[in-house]
Amino acid sequence: MLDERTAFGLQTRDERFGALANLLPIVRELKPLIHCITNYVTANDCANAILALGASPIMADDLREVADIVKISKALVLNIGTLNARTVESMIAAGKKANALKIPVIFDPVGAGASAYRNESTQRMLQSVRMAVIRGNLSEMSFIAGLEVSTKGVDSAAEDESKDPVAIANKVAKEHNCVAAITGEIDTVSDGRKVYRIANGVADLARVTGTGCMTTALIGALCGTVFASHQTSSSANYFNAAIAGIATTGIAGELAKDRLTHAGTGFGTGSFHVALLDAISQMDAATFREKAKINEV
Amino acid sequence: MLDERTAFGLQTRDERFGALANLLPIVRELKPLIHCITNYVTANDCANAILALGASPIMADDLREVADIVKISKALVLNIGTLNARTVESMIAAGKKANALKIPVIFDPVGAGASAYRNESTQRMLQSVRMAVIRGNLSEMSFIAGLEVSTKGVDSAAEDESKDPVAIANKVAKEHNCVAAITGEIDTVSDGRKVYRIANGVADLARVTGTGCMTTALIGALCGTVFASHQTSSSANYFNAAIAGIATTGIAGELAKDRLTHAGTGFGTGSFHVALLDAISQMDAATFREKAKINEV
Amino acid sequence: MLDERTAFGLQTRDERFGALANLLPIVRELKPLIHCITNYVTANDCANAILALGASPIMADDLREVADIVKISKALVLNIGTLNARTVESMIAAGKKANALKIPVIFDPVGAGASAYRNESTQRMLQSVRMAVIRGNLSEMSFIAGLEVSTKGVDSAAEDESKDPVAIANKVAKEHNCVAAITGEIDTVSDGRKVYRIANGVADLARVTGTGCMTTALIGALCGTVFASHQTSSSANYFNAAIAGIATTGIAGELAKDRLTHAGTGFGTGSFHVALLDAISQMDAATFREKAKINEV
Repeated sequence: MLDERTAFGLQTRDERFGALANLLPIVRELKPLIHCITNYVTANDCANAILALGASPIMADDLREVADIVKISKALVLNIGTLNARTVESMIAAGKKANALKIPVIFDPVGAGASAYRNESTQRMLQSVRMAVIRGNLSEMSFIAGLEVSTKGVDSAAEDESKDPVAIANKVAKEHNCVAAITGEIDTVSDGRKVYRIANGVADLARVTGTGCMTTALIGALCGTVFASHQTSSSANYFNAAIAGIATTGIAGELAKDRLTHAGTGFGTGSFHVALLDAISQMDAATFREKAKINEV
Repeated sequence: MLDERTAFGLQTRDERFGALANLLPIVRELKPLIHCITNYVTANDCANAILALGASPIMADDLREVADIVKISKALVLNIGTLNARTVESMIAAGKKANALKIPVIFDPVGAGASAYRNESTQRMLQSVRMAVIRGNLSEMSFIAGLEVSTKGVDSAAEDESKDPVAIANKVAKEHNCVAAITGEIDTVSDGRKVYRIANGVADLARVTGTGCMTTALIGALCGTVFASHQTSSSANYFNAAIAGIATTGIAGELAKDRLTHAGTGFGTGSFHVALLDAISQMDAATFREKAKINEV
Repeated sequence: MLDERTAFGLQTRDERFGALANLLPIVRELKPLIHCITNYVTANDCANAILALGASPIMADDLREVADIVKISKALVLNIGTLNARTVESMIAAGKKANALKIPVIFDPVGAGASAYRNESTQRMLQSVRMAVIRGNLSEMSFIAGLEVSTKGVDSAAEDESKDPVAIANKVAKEHNCVAAITGEIDTVSDGRKVYRIANGVADLARVTGTGCMTTALIGALCGTVFASHQTSSSANYFNAAIAGIATTGIAGELAKDRLTHAGTGFGTGSFHVALLDAISQMDAATFREKAKINEV
């Protein structure tokens, strides 16, 4: 279903946006099952974001069943927001099974850098599982980059490089042979060779919990769509999926803010949260093409 | 409080709707405590749905306390959406305690059929606990029906019978001596002797996670109301509770969609989710009577 | 940043409201990190309430990391809504670490009195951790008061004193050397010497799950702000934080109800939930000063 035009990077800017935008209707067509092992704070939002984009979520985290659930899924999303000793083992087992089946694994290292246990678990997961996409904020991705280059600790590495998301994304992408995405005011996505920056989004996104987790879930839905369409051999497609997922959240945030601005006063973060899911559920290729602000670095 | 008119099945169609509808004000009057051992993805929605209908939710899943919580509750809802080795034991212990106290147990076998562990756990629960109501989708209920008749595995059983929800509901109801409810575009509810079909609902309900779980929670609130009103000896009343709970979700979905349709453009699954809870919280006997589409097969 | 005027109790009524109100902009200025070990039913709402007020939430409950997370936080919120054997240990370890660092601990004894395990865990936590603020409903706080004075059991103690929240709050505050807050139609806050009552709020708050948990989370955000502003030596400031947090929820509830009343018909508990978060996110000192209904007993 994905045609050659989605082979990113060989196109003009307009063609590229088209290729990304064209992923969206395929999600709704293929409705891939997305297995999430994720935190209990934003699990509902992640499930609803996946549904809003047209895919189908399944949350399952017991070690006894994750391999079975991976087998019937098209992508696996691992999010360590509220990790514990039980679920870390489940994540690793699920990730290994996904690797064996070549099902893409999308990793959200929530809070990496904030505790020794979170750091060790992140490292174990990266050593045990090949990730197709890693998405985090600058601090989390700095930690991942730092772990690999020095034993000076997380903070020093972060100090050295945290000012340059492009360098950090490139480093994570190269060292982990994956797509690395750093979200922030401007988002940065690298596959280790090329880097794209995304300027969509609004500040309100940072005032609702889980918009990062939801973005990772959307990337999962898009990677699952790529996998389900049998174009798994091209890593370029997961690159596309990451860029499209991040831009979708950003554009949806802009649309949500627009709607509330026009609706009058009295609307705050609660209404923005609802309007964000509304906008994801109504995202289509035409809107994406019109609104996307994506540039190669 | 429940009068003879709620003895379902001896009435004209209008009287029957009245009997179902009349359960609703009694929920608000008795405010029964509903104990839920449920998944972390939709626990918030389940609690809010129970409150919206007028009952009172309590979520508690540690083995050390579930028996105590059951003792003060009027119904027990067991939902295996994110089951794990710890909570499965809690569900079984709670279910046994509820059985001993004749408190109705409402079972939602989320994802039954999707993993060996989920299947084994479902089977263990059905063998250990007598359920008053089991509610699932066609796939989940096919699994439960199939488990009882063959060892050929889940899929074959599902293939044999999944086309006929009436037969599956009847089979589950008879074999487990319970009310069996299969929700879908048309819902099917059987007590093993009679079968009712409910045509309420809108497609949008499938685009929000947890509307199935919420329906099970509403059935729990209504079963708890029946129990609290001391008419526990008549299984017909839990049959009523299941039908009324399912129709309530369907009618609320229709009202939610109507409101958003009239409100203009820009509304998607986020707003539908909110409007659904609004409609449940405003459901009354008159609305139910007017909107219910329920027929005996 | 907090000036002398926040030293509560030495002022006229207008000055006092000003002192409380002036905490609000400081939350947004300092953005303190608030560590929550809380239940999975309302964790999303707690995180969003903390963000709405301008602070930053982190949910982390594994024993291996809670001490590390406490170290980087400005307040610790412990909520036993869905306690289990694993998380109770995490709560106690986190609480001890917070005590060692003089970081304020805010305790929400959800459901205390409802099961032996919940009661024992509450007692263990109170014996192991010094709480800066305890907030509960009348039943929960009656249990805590009763545990300390008799071995006749929870109910008898509750019967003896449950009619008088002022006496119960005073007793809990004195015995646990903390600020004790009992929320209800009228809220009661005591530091063991003085008692204030808050008349803000609407009945709709009781029809959405987690508004109590959210209030405790807001108290956490405000206590974290007090701590971050280096005025930790004065217990009066946590008293202020508790009063301001409770009044914020009450005022936000009033504003939410006002907005929905003016918006027309069809709005129920789902919309109220959203509007409540909106109002918290828009709360400012001027609104607080205008709307607060707080009196010393």
